Amino acid sequence: MSTGWHTFATIDPFNGMTAGKPGQLANLVGGEWQAPASTRDDIVDPLNGEAFLLVPDTDDIEPFLAGLATCPKSGLHNPLKNTERYVHLGGVCAGAAALLATPDVESYFTRLTQRVMPKSWQQCLNEVIVTRVFLENFAGDGVRFLGRGFSNPGDHTGQESRGYRWPFGPVAVIAPFNFPLEIPALQTLGALFMGNRPLVKVDSKVSAVYEQFLRMLIHCGLSPNDIDLIHCRGEKMGELISAATGQLRLVQFTGSSSVAERVAKTMNGKVRLEDAGFDWKIIGPDFDPDWVDYVAWQCDEDAYNASGQKCSAQSILFVHDNWTDALLPKLAELAARRNLSDLTIGPVLSWTNEQIKAHIDAVIGVPGTELLFGGKPLTGHSIPVEFGAYEPTAVRAPLAALCGEHFELLTTELFGPFQVIVTYGGDDVDTVLALLERISHHLTAAVVSADVQFQNRVLSSTVNGTTYCGMRARTTGAPRC
Amino acid sequence: MSTGWHTFATIDPFNGMTAGKPGQLANLVGGEWQAPASTRDDIVDPLNGEAFLLVPDTDDIEPFLAGLATCPKSGLHNPLKNTERYVHLGGVCAGAAALLATPDVESYFTRLTQRVMPKSWQQCLNEVIVTRVFLENFAGDGVRFLGRGFSNPGDHTGQESRGYRWPFGPVAVIAPFNFPLEIPALQTLGALFMGNRPLVKVDSKVSAVYEQFLRMLIHCGLSPNDIDLIHCRGEKMGELISAATGQLRLVQFTGSSSVAERVAKTMNGKVRLEDAGFDWKIIGPDFDPDWVDYVAWQCDEDAYNASGQKCSAQSILFVHDNWTDALLPKLAELAARRNLSDLTIGPVLSWTNEQIKAHIDAVIGVPGTELLFGGKPLTGHSIPVEFGAYEPTAVRAPLAALCGEHFELLTTELFGPFQVIVTYGGDDVDTVLALLERISHHLTAAVVSADVQFQNRVLSSTVNGTTYCGMRARTTGAPRC
Amino acid sequence: MSTGWHTFATIDPFNGMTAGKPGQLANLVGGEWQAPASTRDDIVDPLNGEAFLLVPDTDDIEPFLAGLATCPKSGLHNPLKNTERYVHLGGVCAGAAALLATPDVESYFTRLTQRVMPKSWQQCLNEVIVTRVFLENFAGDGVRFLGRGFSNPGDHTGQESRGYRWPFGPVAVIAPFNFPLEIPALQTLGALFMGNRPLVKVDSKVSAVYEQFLRMLIHCGLSPNDIDLIHCRGEKMGELISAATGQLRLVQFTGSSSVAERVAKTMNGKVRLEDAGFDWKIIGPDFDPDWVDYVAWQCDEDAYNASGQKCSAQSILFVHDNWTDALLPKLAELAARRNLSDLTIGPVLSWTNEQIKAHIDAVIGVPGTELLFGGKPLTGHSIPVEFGAYEPTAVRAPLAALCGEHFELLTTELFGPFQVIVTYGGDDVDTVLALLERISHHLTAAVVSADVQFQNRVLSSTVNGTTYCGMRARTTGAPRC
Amino acid sequence: MSTGWHTFATIDPFNGMTAGKPGQLANLVGGEWQAPASTRDDIVDPLNGEAFLLVPDTDDIEPFLAGLATCPKSGLHNPLKNTERYVHLGGVCAGAAALLATPDVESYFTRLTQRVMPKSWQQCLNEVIVTRVFLENFAGDGVRFLGRGFSNPGDHTGQESRGYRWPFGPVAVIAPFNFPLEIPALQTLGALFMGNRPLVKVDSKVSAVYEQFLRMLIHCGLSPNDIDLIHCRGEKMGELISAATGQLRLVQFTGSSSVAERVAKTMNGKVRLEDAGFDWKIIGPDFDPDWVDYVAWQCDEDAYNASGQKCSAQSILFVHDNWTDALLPKLAELAARRNLSDLTIGPVLSWTNEQIKAHIDAVIGVPGTELLFGGKPLTGHSIPVEFGAYEPTAVRAPLAALCGEHFELLTTELFGPFQVIVTYGGDDVDTVLALLERISHHLTAAVVSADVQFQNRVLSSTVNGTTYCGMRARTTGAPRC
Repeated sequence: MSTGWHTFATIDPFNGMTAGKPGQLANLVGGEWQAPASTRDDIVDPLNGEAFLLVPDTDDIEPFLAGLATCPKSGLHNPLKNTERYVHLGGVCAGAAALLATPDVESYFTRLTQRVMPKSWQQCLNEVIVTRVFLENFAGDGVRFLGRGFSNPGDHTGQESRGYRWPFGPVAVIAPFNFPLEIPALQTLGALFMGNRPLVKVDSKVSAVYEQFLRMLIHCGLSPNDIDLIHCRGEKMGELISAATGQLRLVQFTGSSSVAERVAKTMNGKVRLEDAGFDWKIIGPDFDPDWVDYVAWQCDEDAYNASGQKCSAQSILFVHDNWTDALLPKLAELAARRNLSDLTIGPVLSWTNEQIKAHIDAVIGVPGTELLFGGKPLTGHSIPVEFGAYEPTAVRAPLAALCGEHFELLTTELFGPFQVIVTYGGDDVDTVLALLERISHHLTAAVVSADVQFQNRVLSSTVNGTTYCGMRARTTGAPRC
Repeated sequence: MSTGWHTFATIDPFNGMTAGKPGQLANLVGGEWQAPASTRDDIVDPLNGEAFLLVPDTDDIEPFLAGLATCPKSGLHNPLKNTERYVHLGGVCAGAAALLATPDVESYFTRLTQRVMPKSWQQCLNEVIVTRVFLENFAGDGVRFLGRGFSNPGDHTGQESRGYRWPFGPVAVIAPFNFPLEIPALQTLGALFMGNRPLVKVDSKVSAVYEQFLRMLIHCGLSPNDIDLIHCRGEKMGELISAATGQLRLVQFTGSSSVAERVAKTMNGKVRLEDAGFDWKIIGPDFDPDWVDYVAWQCDEDAYNASGQKCSAQSILFVHDNWTDALLPKLAELAARRNLSDLTIGPVLSWTNEQIKAHIDAVIGVPGTELLFGGKPLTGHSIPVEFGAYEPTAVRAPLAALCGEHFELLTTELFGPFQVIVTYGGDDVDTVLALLERISHHLTAAVVSADVQFQNRVLSSTVNGTTYCGMRARTTGAPRC
Repeated sequence: MSTGWHTFATIDPFNGMTAGKPGQLANLVGGEWQAPASTRDDIVDPLNGEAFLLVPDTDDIEPFLAGLATCPKSGLHNPLKNTERYVHLGGVCAGAAALLATPDVESYFTRLTQRVMPKSWQQCLNEVIVTRVFLENFAGDGVRFLGRGFSNPGDHTGQESRGYRWPFGPVAVIAPFNFPLEIPALQTLGALFMGNRPLVKVDSKVSAVYEQFLRMLIHCGLSPNDIDLIHCRGEKMGELISAATGQLRLVQFTGSSSVAERVAKTMNGKVRLEDAGFDWKIIGPDFDPDWVDYVAWQCDEDAYNASGQKCSAQSILFVHDNWTDALLPKLAELAARRNLSDLTIGPVLSWTNEQIKAHIDAVIGVPGTELLFGGKPLTGHSIPVEFGAYEPTAVRAPLAALCGEHFELLTTELFGPFQVIVTYGGDDVDTVLALLERISHHLTAAVVSADVQFQNRVLSSTVNGTTYCGMRARTTGAPRC
Repeated sequence: MSTGWHTFATIDPFNGMTAGKPGQLANLVGGEWQAPASTRDDIVDPLNGEAFLLVPDTDDIEPFLAGLATCPKSGLHNPLKNTERYVHLGGVCAGAAALLATPDVESYFTRLTQRVMPKSWQQCLNEVIVTRVFLENFAGDGVRFLGRGFSNPGDHTGQESRGYRWPFGPVAVIAPFNFPLEIPALQTLGALFMGNRPLVKVDSKVSAVYEQFLRMLIHCGLSPNDIDLIHCRGEKMGELISAATGQLRLVQFTGSSSVAERVAKTMNGKVRLEDAGFDWKIIGPDFDPDWVDYVAWQCDEDAYNASGQKCSAQSILFVHDNWTDALLPKLAELAARRNLSDLTIGPVLSWTNEQIKAHIDAVIGVPGTELLFGGKPLTGHSIPVEFGAYEPTAVRAPLAALCGEHFELLTTELFGPFQVIVTYGGDDVDTVLALLERISHHLTAAVVSADVQFQNRVLSSTVNGTTYCGMRARTTGAPRC
């Protein structure tokens, strides 16, 4: 297998994708790449508003409904059917992982990701690395072993209970804009491994990345008939799902809570959702001057990387009084170092400046709050107005304010570079724990402390998808289990 | 521990529960047994319509909302909190299992079950045995081991990924009438084991059984504060759930599809449903005269035990032509032996005779169908009119009829002693498989065949919760995994 | 099932087992209980030297060789053969656990154990409890689930890799004197569960207990053909093994290292050994006055319970200087409270006073050592001279002495109430760790500290079967996994 | 990473390794490649007896003893120590797998293997593929996940049972000649993954392959300090083990039974052995003409690939009478097609022609036996006399002869191209099963039948490491679990 990205990719993020030579995207359906006549005119370069991609504005959903119909409920394969596909997909993973490990292809996907979702090189590179390691994890016999079943001796000789991992069959994967590669790559591969045939839609602002990734998988041996990819508007996808409720066995949706609820209703509960998280970090009483720099750095990373556009971004920070004086000034310093030139701060793709300002104003309107830093739009750039562009911002709020009528406002997620900071004292731990209990969307959390008693007190009383614990605790990251 | 049922039970199904001395039921809430002033007048003895139980018609839901509020999202216990409760609950299981193993208590629950849900002694006894074995499975360290977590080495020394089994916290369990003991017992214990605090509602027609079971658990050491039990109408429970959506983290619902959908919408998808199954059995081409009697017997059991009121009951039977002549007459013979005196046929608690007749008439109206046996109401009994009482019934339908416009009608579940029988030939297997693919509610299924090729053809192409396979294949049963 | 011990037991430890009416033991072979003509005259009451048991002095091994021959390598059952036995054995466990939970039977086995292996009531009761919980753990489907297998999808449709848990077939279990019930009970049941047919030999001084336990299992439904029990001298058992090397597929041996090595050689490695452990406890630098009493109590328990006759007994104690002054005097106090009347100190069944004295003298002869307490034979008793009877004894040795030529002597296990105590300073941790690395028999260990850094330093650098960690750390106990 | 074998390898099997330019091998010890002064003169090209490799005749074992001493019992890493090594080793696997997947490196190792262990290209290639897939299986997080531990809730809050996968520390791996790459590669990598530091010795006739593989691993990032490699004679390795019994925690030995027993004695049982297997295949009664060609082909592969030098090679074939006439002639035909030119038959490295002839003569001497084919030395070659060179040979023996005094002789493994064939009738199945029970070395077996009853009869009554079952059943192969 040749190892350059030119062997499979159709878009050049280094020299191409300019207004003069925009990249042409295409749907994959029925095993064929097809570029519909109609192209969206609202997809623009997030850094300058210029045209840079020709994204299909797909209108005809019939071919995709037909695609779903090609896969039975028992899947393209299962432990009793077409089992050679498990090993074959393991081989595709091995090949794709090796390709992603080459500097050429690694930087290709990093750069392409950065072009559509402007964040720092490291943040984009992390997506490529996570995706590569995921592929490595399922290389060889990895897919086959994921299909592991079990048996138990039965009541009588000749009888045996067997359990098999069975596919859903035709499924849909709907992926958001903030992780253009990692989220759709991992979700669709996981679906494929176990015999499902996914219909994939990625936010059209960034779907170029996944399309190129899919072309790479096909280059590595994946059958183009195993998956359908549609570039279309959200409303059209909603229409497609509504038309396919009888066929779709599951929809994996990642995105906003409101759309998530709509999909859940349409699908009558046959969904897997990953929506918002109002992620908290609590810094415990055991102040340690040796750790201040590290903790401050991690807070800055958690709150403002990708301009806060992570579902795992730190939304609220509880700081014990012992840390306040040392820590808060450092947060301001670190935030001030972020800039557009290296995209450590960048466009906000789902909130406009107007919306951001309105929310910050409301928060600052709460008695006792204080703007710690930020709070102003970015200047000196050409980010188009349909996107936000705001300084990393933190508002300090009194604990009492959170406990009262402003709880809802202060725990509303702004999907951008914004966090609320609350300080607390030794007697306030129960109050803080009661607040954490009230928060409705638990995704990630962090307990920054080396005090085993304090750790246990918080850990045993809270509920999160992932809780990071220890002096290095963070809200963002990717634990592997 | 004393071993007689008198030590814990408040109702006597052997001599009591008559009109003269009806059994008084009570709610458990806040650790106290409370019998509300108001009692339902519509709960009657299903065999003669007489009053036999005083079931609370609970109206005030406040105490139950308060009960939910006593349990945080992190549960009554979790692997980091109150871990002594794991071992304690294992001890409760050991004690309760030993008690259920005594002939006195075993027959008590068998008889009580039969009084409220009239089915054969063996069917009722099976519930007690399944419940006892479940308790044995979690005796000793069983609960603790269910709380098993894992760890993976982290990226750096001192770092480790840990996975713990965490509770949901406050949950609800809503159980139906057809398995008065087994379903609520297993579901609430499972919830308790992992730290949840369940609010339990069982269909008021049969909730007496679970109440007595709960009294036995408390006798064996369960804290009465660990669980709340409400006797109330379905509408009241709906009201309670609506009022508690912010608190309830999960609802486990077993019952009809229509109510299930309503609960799912209220809870925004935070439900575990076990609703209908239109369960099929297919008898393969490898006719074996030595097996005819067994297969016929199993078909009769699957279709008509508990008068067909099992979600695993055989709803449709596909018979290969090689078996038709030998098998069908035997099915009629076996059905004819069922009678009210031993409750091998009995009241149908959720369909009236009128409704049953209407469905059978509609099915018989399909061209080409034939009433094989049954089809008439039972006579010579005092079952009240609000319940059904019908002969075991089978209608033979042509395969072609199923494939056409009558598919919906012929695959509608009648939760009573009714099945559809279809014969097919060697060339029809793909047609049959296509029908199975169209059925929407997959729960159990059976492939009656010793032909490995045929088994694999069917198994690899279908989707069910449990598929039984082999000459002894059945649709009803309890595989243990 | 009747619940008194009279229903199954043949020996009465409360009133019987005296010189006038000694209990008669019997072999179980070929499904029959048989008392050979010849009886050992050297088995005497360990507290007064009187005859109290008639233990067969079995000479004829032919019936036992024949017993081994009845079981093929594929076992009495396996996941493809006689699978009803899994469920049956689960039922035996449920019944036996329920019986052991009755006060009558619980005290019976506690008392019987105490009669043959004199240790405190609590120590004997613990054996009964551990055994009962083990039975509970395998009640119901527990045995079946232990036979769980797995499957992986194969390279081609129709192909599948399956893994099954297979028995060894004919095996032997050889158990020591110190845990008359727990060790042979758990080991033989585990062997039985998975389809093996064990030939069991327990040290004849205490084999009465296991024989009665086996009678109870048979009372609860175990087939007497599933197991053979032989009462005989060690030399005879060696002869039996030598004659059966071609048949025996595994020998589980618990006992002294020297015999273990001999068995290993005879069986060419087909053995599972649990021999000696020179178990260490290290008390870390984080002295906490609130914990001194607890730590001292646990040290006393670990060193002297069962008069030190546990393979998990604390053999050497490393005490950080921060603890020395507070802890050492308390150890002496606690040891002084032990007395013969409640058997908190009692006979030593495998070392005579002469041997004990010789070892202590040798240790004390090492320059720098100091006798902290004990060091004298017990007085005022009638324990026969073939057994030891010694005060709880501790010798303090300088760390330097351990590092030098006396390492072997100071790390030799005395299977009685004796321990070595070493104090160390903050700079000595590496020296201590190097010593732990040199010890050859690792079984249990304890790290008494709440300091995470210290814990990790020790835990990451050492190797033990079980390491207990934390302020409550102990060397004796039974973690359940 | 550059992708050619020239980047890491020191030997050229395509053009080099001739008498004029023999390849120089070296030991790896203390992180350095060292070629001792002394070289063996008895390692010759197995096809022509010429010198082709300079293999160290290592005499000084001190550096290797020192190497063992660098690794503590707690290993180079464990879940609490140096955990970054898990991920690092996963990365080494990913890189090495990608390299082995390149045609250049794949053919390099295939060719090198064939030069030292002459067998067909496909047989050699299989080793490379198996090794590559193994590397893929542990790429990414694979090593880390192999270090997975568990936790169980403890008796009290704050208490928890944790189980970790711990290393042995310093270990040795001794590998044979027949799989020069696969066996030492998989065994040493598995040891490395879990924190052990292996000292490796491969049969000096073939150790060139593993040395080059190790160089490739180091090229991919493995630390040369993680492993020591010694080229030496067997006696020297025995001396090394004897000198290191106090340090070595485990020896993994693959090779002959006699050496295995010696190692086991030296190490007092601390060994993992993979020695001989007398592997049987039984062809069931369900003759199927469509399968004759396949079954015959598989029999030929199982018996004669690698000239029978596999521990999984078919040593005895039981053929049901229904198959005899059709199958036996085909076996002769297939054997006749094997030839030296493509190495489908080749030198036998551990038996001389003299030894082979003596064994065949003895077998043929048994009354009733018949030489089916083969039985003569190969001619027209330059294989040196210290190696065997024999035609694929089969001797038919009567079932009765196996049951009697000749059992030992007829079930003695000849590690070369030789098998015994026995035919049996329907009444003989129990006799055959009794024979299988008597065989002492169970490794692989095959049940060639599609008859479920027959399969179960054999499978449930026999014991093997791996049993292949079905019409495609084989004795050689590599199931992945």
